[in-house]
Amino acid sequence: MSLNTFGHLFRVTTWGESHGPALGATVDGCPPGIVLAPAMIQHWLDRRKPGQNRFTTQRREPDEVRILSGVYEGRTTGTPIQLMIENTDQRSKDYGDIARTFRPGHADLTYWLKYGIRDPRGGGRSSARETAARVAAGSVAREALKALAPGVKITGYMVQMGRLRADRDRFDPEEVERNPFWCPDAAAAAIWAEHLDELRKSGNSVGAVVEVVASGVPAGLGAPIYGKLDSDLAAAMMSINAVKGVEIGAGMAAAELTGVENADEIFMGNDGRPRFSSNHAGGVLGGISTGQDVVVRFAVKPTSSILTPRKSITLAGEEAEVVTKGRHDPCVGIRAVPVGEAMMACVILDHLLLHRGQVGDGGGRIG
Amino acid sequence: MSLNTFGHLFRVTTWGESHGPALGATVDGCPPGIVLAPAMIQHWLDRRKPGQNRFTTQRREPDEVRILSGVYEGRTTGTPIQLMIENTDQRSKDYGDIARTFRPGHADLTYWLKYGIRDPRGGGRSSARETAARVAAGSVAREALKALAPGVKITGYMVQMGRLRADRDRFDPEEVERNPFWCPDAAAAAIWAEHLDELRKSGNSVGAVVEVVASGVPAGLGAPIYGKLDSDLAAAMMSINAVKGVEIGAGMAAAELTGVENADEIFMGNDGRPRFSSNHAGGVLGGISTGQDVVVRFAVKPTSSILTPRKSITLAGEEAEVVTKGRHDPCVGIRAVPVGEAMMACVILDHLLLHRGQVGDGGGRIG
Amino acid sequence: MSLNTFGHLFRVTTWGESHGPALGATVDGCPPGIVLAPAMIQHWLDRRKPGQNRFTTQRREPDEVRILSGVYEGRTTGTPIQLMIENTDQRSKDYGDIARTFRPGHADLTYWLKYGIRDPRGGGRSSARETAARVAAGSVAREALKALAPGVKITGYMVQMGRLRADRDRFDPEEVERNPFWCPDAAAAAIWAEHLDELRKSGNSVGAVVEVVASGVPAGLGAPIYGKLDSDLAAAMMSINAVKGVEIGAGMAAAELTGVENADEIFMGNDGRPRFSSNHAGGVLGGISTGQDVVVRFAVKPTSSILTPRKSITLAGEEAEVVTKGRHDPCVGIRAVPVGEAMMACVILDHLLLHRGQVGDGGGRIG
Amino acid sequence: MSLNTFGHLFRVTTWGESHGPALGATVDGCPPGIVLAPAMIQHWLDRRKPGQNRFTTQRREPDEVRILSGVYEGRTTGTPIQLMIENTDQRSKDYGDIARTFRPGHADLTYWLKYGIRDPRGGGRSSARETAARVAAGSVAREALKALAPGVKITGYMVQMGRLRADRDRFDPEEVERNPFWCPDAAAAAIWAEHLDELRKSGNSVGAVVEVVASGVPAGLGAPIYGKLDSDLAAAMMSINAVKGVEIGAGMAAAELTGVENADEIFMGNDGRPRFSSNHAGGVLGGISTGQDVVVRFAVKPTSSILTPRKSITLAGEEAEVVTKGRHDPCVGIRAVPVGEAMMACVILDHLLLHRGQVGDGGGRIG
Repeated sequence: MSLNTFGHLFRVTTWGESHGPALGATVDGCPPGIVLAPAMIQHWLDRRKPGQNRFTTQRREPDEVRILSGVYEGRTTGTPIQLMIENTDQRSKDYGDIARTFRPGHADLTYWLKYGIRDPRGGGRSSARETAARVAAGSVAREALKALAPGVKITGYMVQMGRLRADRDRFDPEEVERNPFWCPDAAAAAIWAEHLDELRKSGNSVGAVVEVVASGVPAGLGAPIYGKLDSDLAAAMMSINAVKGVEIGAGMAAAELTGVENADEIFMGNDGRPRFSSNHAGGVLGGISTGQDVVVRFAVKPTSSILTPRKSITLAGEEAEVVTKGRHDPCVGIRAVPVGEAMMACVILDHLLLHRGQVGDGGGRIG
Repeated sequence: MSLNTFGHLFRVTTWGESHGPALGATVDGCPPGIVLAPAMIQHWLDRRKPGQNRFTTQRREPDEVRILSGVYEGRTTGTPIQLMIENTDQRSKDYGDIARTFRPGHADLTYWLKYGIRDPRGGGRSSARETAARVAAGSVAREALKALAPGVKITGYMVQMGRLRADRDRFDPEEVERNPFWCPDAAAAAIWAEHLDELRKSGNSVGAVVEVVASGVPAGLGAPIYGKLDSDLAAAMMSINAVKGVEIGAGMAAAELTGVENADEIFMGNDGRPRFSSNHAGGVLGGISTGQDVVVRFAVKPTSSILTPRKSITLAGEEAEVVTKGRHDPCVGIRAVPVGEAMMACVILDHLLLHRGQVGDGGGRIG
Repeated sequence: MSLNTFGHLFRVTTWGESHGPALGATVDGCPPGIVLAPAMIQHWLDRRKPGQNRFTTQRREPDEVRILSGVYEGRTTGTPIQLMIENTDQRSKDYGDIARTFRPGHADLTYWLKYGIRDPRGGGRSSARETAARVAAGSVAREALKALAPGVKITGYMVQMGRLRADRDRFDPEEVERNPFWCPDAAAAAIWAEHLDELRKSGNSVGAVVEVVASGVPAGLGAPIYGKLDSDLAAAMMSINAVKGVEIGAGMAAAELTGVENADEIFMGNDGRPRFSSNHAGGVLGGISTGQDVVVRFAVKPTSSILTPRKSITLAGEEAEVVTKGRHDPCVGIRAVPVGEAMMACVILDHLLLHRGQVGDGGGRIG
Repeated sequence: MSLNTFGHLFRVTTWGESHGPALGATVDGCPPGIVLAPAMIQHWLDRRKPGQNRFTTQRREPDEVRILSGVYEGRTTGTPIQLMIENTDQRSKDYGDIARTFRPGHADLTYWLKYGIRDPRGGGRSSARETAARVAAGSVAREALKALAPGVKITGYMVQMGRLRADRDRFDPEEVERNPFWCPDAAAAAIWAEHLDELRKSGNSVGAVVEVVASGVPAGLGAPIYGKLDSDLAAAMMSINAVKGVEIGAGMAAAELTGVENADEIFMGNDGRPRFSSNHAGGVLGGISTGQDVVVRFAVKPTSSILTPRKSITLAGEEAEVVTKGRHDPCVGIRAVPVGEAMMACVILDHLLLHRGQVGDGGGRIG
């Protein structure tokens, strides 16, 4: 990962500012011959799109994607795929008054300190809007995975909002698409809705934990030591706006386990592949996939754009009180779900290609 | 990060297996003119060296580093610095019996599934011994930081062993060097010692949480969007053996905060630089350093090499019971402390060079 | 250089096909604060634009560039700059009949063999039209160079068409802009015009040699061993369509020199910088700039799209005769001049940033 | 290519100075399971070794390679392969007097201007001795090619010394190993021997042209646009010490051809693969291999270390006369032959892996 590009062989470069003419993703290194149509990308963009319910920002963007290159007669050609989303709802006036003040907890300050210039309109490049480009790129990765590793399935969902955790005993995969929180626990979702309504009305916001699972991932993916599958996933998730922590499998809780508890015991499956008694490893050992579900969780901090006044300073160095009057998400974690899925899809595909490059059809067999 | 190399401009390639003739690090892109002597590197290697007390593996390696290139008359020349550590204590016999069995929770299985060949002697490339090369490289980064950003100070310590947490109210920086756990809380260290003795005797192991803090880091470091300072730190820490979770600042707990609680309010310092009421951000906003302490935590899982028998399979696909008879660390988290420091040093220096490359002496001023 | 991206810190990713909706360049890593307006880019695009005289293809593209990101209030922000050129003159019918036949000497065949799919409209990605994106990116590099190294001046010109060489004794820099060949020798240009008219009428084409000189380049640029300034220039020029050879300084003729002849003797300049008796080195020693003019030459092969029938095969493996009926350049070398300049600008800026990153203001002084 | 590393997936990092304790290559990304023994590497190193006849430097190095990692029981494991060559014949005294003077045409000056420090012993990092590490790495690539693409054969030879060209009509592949110039034309070799004896005695040196051919390269290798096979080859060859020009196929002479002459007409081979009437393309179209011989030529300038006095300056800025008293090669082109072969092997393997990564077994068929 480097500046605005990530990936080794499946390389994604995102570009664009929140309130510029357009933003997008340049996807390079995609295998040729993959069926790809705008509607396939649009499907995933629509999941991420704001303004779909009262829990996400009311900014209304059609977020319509155009494929400008790399596809011929409905198939990828192996050349760069340019995905462009035009910005149509650019209410710069909402943000005009913050051009000279720094919002606490926001990149306003650091972009200024780093570059000596910043585009204040809607947060410029640091806006969560950048993640639309990731979702677009991720949908290309999904289509490529369909062709190359059809068994792979990627699902994201929220497991925690504030201090309220979903109950794994109540998890129902069908439920994820039925509530505005992508929460597999219907009861938790109902409680979250109430809680978030209160927070929103009080001009506050709240954090969340998102979990993304990739099942059907072949064993052997990951490039130790420094391109480990989990290392790349950690970088990918941590690069999403507002993410402050990333866990693989047992995650931070692994610290609390003993070696006896933590050992995922191994058995022989009927298909000649190893099976495991548990998945503390989150599907990754030594940086390489085991064939189990790859499980990643990340914490999203509460939006820093809140209606409650906070102390800050101005460009001139004077004290100021900051209130974000513009539209905002009371819980950005919600919209981070499809983004996390997209990053997972990109990383898995990238490592599939990397592995194929170095090892081909090789690899060890058991039995 | 890619295969066995990490870093953008300050690039470190580590090589070598646990029981091969040698291992080391090729450090490329180091600024020229930095004072560097073997003793400076040895100092940090000695901190990581096993066998120093009863809580780390009894493998005794002198871990003596040689500088084979890139230094002339005691100064770096800007060309690659080859740091080699010869392996002298290679008791292959200890590991011979596991060449045909896979240890649960270990990379044995995945290296085999990926490559179809593995060096079973001491874990080969997946051994924690690889981290000695990181520490060597990190010590070069430290010397370069001394010259380029003399205010930077990097300190790592353990904050949790198993379920036992150190108490931040009792933190004393002086204490870190005084106990075998690099624990800033003397009382906790005493309890941990007792706890670990028990675990060790029962043939078990335990996880830990390590925190690494870099103070004095200039504001403006970090290459958004995909080379964010925190994204690179997450990758760096997650690439360390046995790490399962990485946190920046408030970390996973950020999910539990409201926007009001999480906002680090900003004030004007007397030196013309911003000050903050708190550091939930962990010194990074929008992927760029704020000038506050950069705070990273990571969870290390318990060693999978334990004396308690666990179920597994053999290369032939038969059921097996695995007991690790060789020397092992009951809590590898301990030796991860200097490794985490080394990764922090490398990442900070790398971003210092990247920033200097793109922005030079520029950047914005306040007031 | 990798797939569709080149550069280390100043990274350019080009995308787009000849007859798709648009093409462009994503410029990442540009220093912030650089003054940049579309007109500055358009100036250089217009130089490369076809259809300006009878010696270039009659395809008429306005080649109008739009800046979609990375610029705020007329200055670069340090974030990715997306430069898009829409394709307006897409006469696909001209090329329809070659979708099933491979033109000799063209990438038709190899794109098919590699990818199993190709966009035949106007050559798709392999069209010389891709170089418009390079020129756009190069113009950004020029503006950055103006700010960072104002002494740098980059000039390209043709020195040979077919067997006809320009005479260095008659070189007049003013002449370059006055004839359609960017030829500094007015007499040669007149002869070339006659020669090319004949070739064009006979349905043939011809090769050329282009020279690009960067003067005012500071000493010390270049990243030995594998990012040598001349190595990167060779890659950059060889990546231009139809280029078959690249020379630095004396180039291939260096083989004919003795050590006595080749040695550029060194003197002390009045400004404390070294001066040289000659420039066989082409401004580069050991991969690092000397402060002399950086001199690169490259040979452009004759267009393979000609009106004279050539033997080839079809997709079905049958024999075929190929005649290119579409518009074409009788000497693509002409339009390669601004492209070569653009690549030079990108490489020099990239190495300026790389050097600043590793060495800063350091470097050795003489006297 | 970046600093001291080249390659995309098969990545080679060389390190070490001429008169330091050792030098070597870290080879990362090698496919696993490749048979590799020190003798296989030594074979190629011996070809490059100086002091084998009166036409190369009399420095006598055993140049014995050790494999320090990445190989287990005679096979590569997929982890980094460290190849180390210890320096045993370090006559620093020969070079002591030039530490304060800059040799014309040598990197002495530019390393100083760039880094402000240089290792003057034997040219330090800029010594041709660095190329031993390339040859070692190249021999690993050769073994991998044997396994992955057994039809590939790589052969280098000298085609020109000074103004004396070998005659292609007299080329006999068997002859290459029989004379000290790797010249396929026995008659030319005899003349060269005489010529070089004279030059050597007069304290002079001379340039050369080397040609390297890879036959049996599968069609489809090369990553357009900026990782074109020819672009990577150009970078690879230009990065070799003293190289000033690189040609693919017709090379610079392509400028003199018309489109009719240059077109390599295409026919259908009996094996279902395209055949060509000629190979002006040098086996590469649009940056992708055609299946024909890949043909690269490069010009090596005459050694700048000569016994004839040349004017230069000292570190103090004073005028000086420079005579190189140490051992030197009167025609470094000779020893560049195995180096060019090694670079070719690395580039071909790298692109084989890259292609396998992106495209797999795909690609288009004809007929």
